[in-house]
Amino acid sequence: MNITAESINTDIAKIREQAPLVHNITNYVVMNNTANALLALGASPVMAHAEEEVAEMVGIAGALVINIGTLSRSWVAAMFRAAGRAHELGIPLVLDPVGAGATTYRTKTCRALMETTAPAIIRGNASEIMALAAQGVRTKGVDSADPSAAALEAARQLNEETGSTVCVSGEVDYIVNGGDVITIENGHPMMPRVTGLGCTASALCGAFAAVNPSFPSAAAGAMAVMGIAGEMAAGRSEGPGSLQVAFLDALFRLSEEDLKERLRIGAGS
Amino acid sequence: MNITAESINTDIAKIREQAPLVHNITNYVVMNNTANALLALGASPVMAHAEEEVAEMVGIAGALVINIGTLSRSWVAAMFRAAGRAHELGIPLVLDPVGAGATTYRTKTCRALMETTAPAIIRGNASEIMALAAQGVRTKGVDSADPSAAALEAARQLNEETGSTVCVSGEVDYIVNGGDVITIENGHPMMPRVTGLGCTASALCGAFAAVNPSFPSAAAGAMAVMGIAGEMAAGRSEGPGSLQVAFLDALFRLSEEDLKERLRIGAGS
Amino acid sequence: MNITAESINTDIAKIREQAPLVHNITNYVVMNNTANALLALGASPVMAHAEEEVAEMVGIAGALVINIGTLSRSWVAAMFRAAGRAHELGIPLVLDPVGAGATTYRTKTCRALMETTAPAIIRGNASEIMALAAQGVRTKGVDSADPSAAALEAARQLNEETGSTVCVSGEVDYIVNGGDVITIENGHPMMPRVTGLGCTASALCGAFAAVNPSFPSAAAGAMAVMGIAGEMAAGRSEGPGSLQVAFLDALFRLSEEDLKERLRIGAGS
Repeated sequence: MNITAESINTDIAKIREQAPLVHNITNYVVMNNTANALLALGASPVMAHAEEEVAEMVGIAGALVINIGTLSRSWVAAMFRAAGRAHELGIPLVLDPVGAGATTYRTKTCRALMETTAPAIIRGNASEIMALAAQGVRTKGVDSADPSAAALEAARQLNEETGSTVCVSGEVDYIVNGGDVITIENGHPMMPRVTGLGCTASALCGAFAAVNPSFPSAAAGAMAVMGIAGEMAAGRSEGPGSLQVAFLDALFRLSEEDLKERLRIGAGS
Repeated sequence: MNITAESINTDIAKIREQAPLVHNITNYVVMNNTANALLALGASPVMAHAEEEVAEMVGIAGALVINIGTLSRSWVAAMFRAAGRAHELGIPLVLDPVGAGATTYRTKTCRALMETTAPAIIRGNASEIMALAAQGVRTKGVDSADPSAAALEAARQLNEETGSTVCVSGEVDYIVNGGDVITIENGHPMMPRVTGLGCTASALCGAFAAVNPSFPSAAAGAMAVMGIAGEMAAGRSEGPGSLQVAFLDALFRLSEEDLKERLRIGAGS
Repeated sequence: MNITAESINTDIAKIREQAPLVHNITNYVVMNNTANALLALGASPVMAHAEEEVAEMVGIAGALVINIGTLSRSWVAAMFRAAGRAHELGIPLVLDPVGAGATTYRTKTCRALMETTAPAIIRGNASEIMALAAQGVRTKGVDSADPSAAALEAARQLNEETGSTVCVSGEVDYIVNGGDVITIENGHPMMPRVTGLGCTASALCGAFAAVNPSFPSAAAGAMAVMGIAGEMAAGRSEGPGSLQVAFLDALFRLSEEDLKERLRIGAGS
């Protein structure tokens, strides 16, 4: 697993050529953005959440993305049905545990999904990943001193527990699998002022996982593309409104040269 | 039925003057975009899907637009209720069969809506219209050779079967009614990279149908405006993000001169 | 209560520093916009509507915003549950009665919410506030002659009846509480061509109410910021598409100087 600008560009070329169908069961806030980001990158999004159709829909998809940002009972039922079918068919599942830790309902739903559906990738921010890493025993005392380190430790635990590639996004993104840790240091401080860019990152993980069976590579590609498109967009923006627009343009125009110039990736253990 | 830049401009002027209320029961992905497109053109959008209120809401509307993009049981029930009331009151219904053919649930729901509610206009892309054109007997063998011809044949079948004006959008848009076929050749290749522009086209069909009782003319006006605003926007865009923004500006600013300069319309049988 | 550019700026500084969590139970059309507007101003939005979690979520929030724009049975149940818990905890509630008067279901739901949950602020347009001001007796005969005066009278009635600060937005915004009326005359005529800016105003009322316990001051701050950001955005826009983008940028960049230069506020009784 040697991830470079060239290897990420190869994945992007596959996405643009194959236009993999990415089935999203996601939240109301970001549906439009994530669909647009998938289209801008070259993938083909579909949103479908009815229990009557999710199993059939996931069957024609290259990846399934489940995001609990605005969960409710009937949607959760559809998430389990779609995830179960994806698991049977070997279709990679990306889980975005939006707001895990904020309410019991979210934390429990995520844990149940994790435990029964073997996600390929779990992508969240530091507090979400820490909330899911259960016992939190090993993170005690680390939180205040160094939140990044605490999140990384939680990601390791969660990866051990679930076998899923775990991606913690933040100023530095960590992608954890087995003993390996990939770091991505692209991005821009204005990005958190646009709603749903984390959700978009998860959707792009789905697009990459549809064309690359190495899930750590897929997650790293998605996070690199997010960060680099964000940097390109920030250079043309005067605030979060124009950033969001320029971000989609950047995803659409992203070239191998942009990746080579900007990619800041590291690997360790 | 002689559709010209002048006649389309007359319809736009009516929309801007009367601001017809267009009641949408549509999908989560595009609600914001379609509401903004209707407002930019001059119509007045309302989104309402509760069974408790749809019959009352449609009663004050100039048109009803039903889009099954993210359908579920309770929404489908509301669609039938609203469509039934629209039919009683003579309020034109536009049906957008998003994803028909992708799952059985979508295809069945669309067919049931078509059969019971007599849509004024059915607007979809080639694969959706072909999925609804039932037996598909006559399209066999045509699909691969010439997808446009297959879609046009499917549109003819669907129009014969339902009596609805059928609009197939694509690089060339076909509007089929009785023996007549109108073609619109406006648009830009970047438009499919923005999510929901097809849904927006259906919403604008609703706005035009609210002011023009000739449904083929209404559909042609909507498709012409979509394509022309898309061309105007593409000239000011660097990707699908800025295209979406410039598209709304273009709808707002669209003038008779823009229509005269750009309209590429044809008629045949 | 002396509301000035300086006092509004102090509230904005608190929002930017404290990033209060604003819990929204709002409509599908505007979720993305209102989340982005809250983020651009400096607040922290969360959208959650499941009955299983709303009471817990509102418990960690600085304000609750309820907007009935696309209501349905299960959402209304969650609205009551969240509003009840907010009331118990003393967390300010902003109610946006979208479409009150258009259907019985909306009017009844709003009246029931008003009567049981003691909103801090009710913000709507003239026709919504008039629909809620019940008997409408005193507004008869005034409507046609002077719609602003009728809306102001309705706001007074509603404030008397409920004790809530009532904000009627329009070309002139009125904020009514006790015998006092604050007027804000900022804004731009293109703003009503962007969907959901009224809903955004309500969301910003939530952000201000989370940092300022004087609800008339909070509502005035929100309406001033809306109008001023709208003016700043209009100067950089060519239509409603670019206005929406520039509006978020303006919220993000808004300075005390902008407030001082542009604020048009009045007070009376």
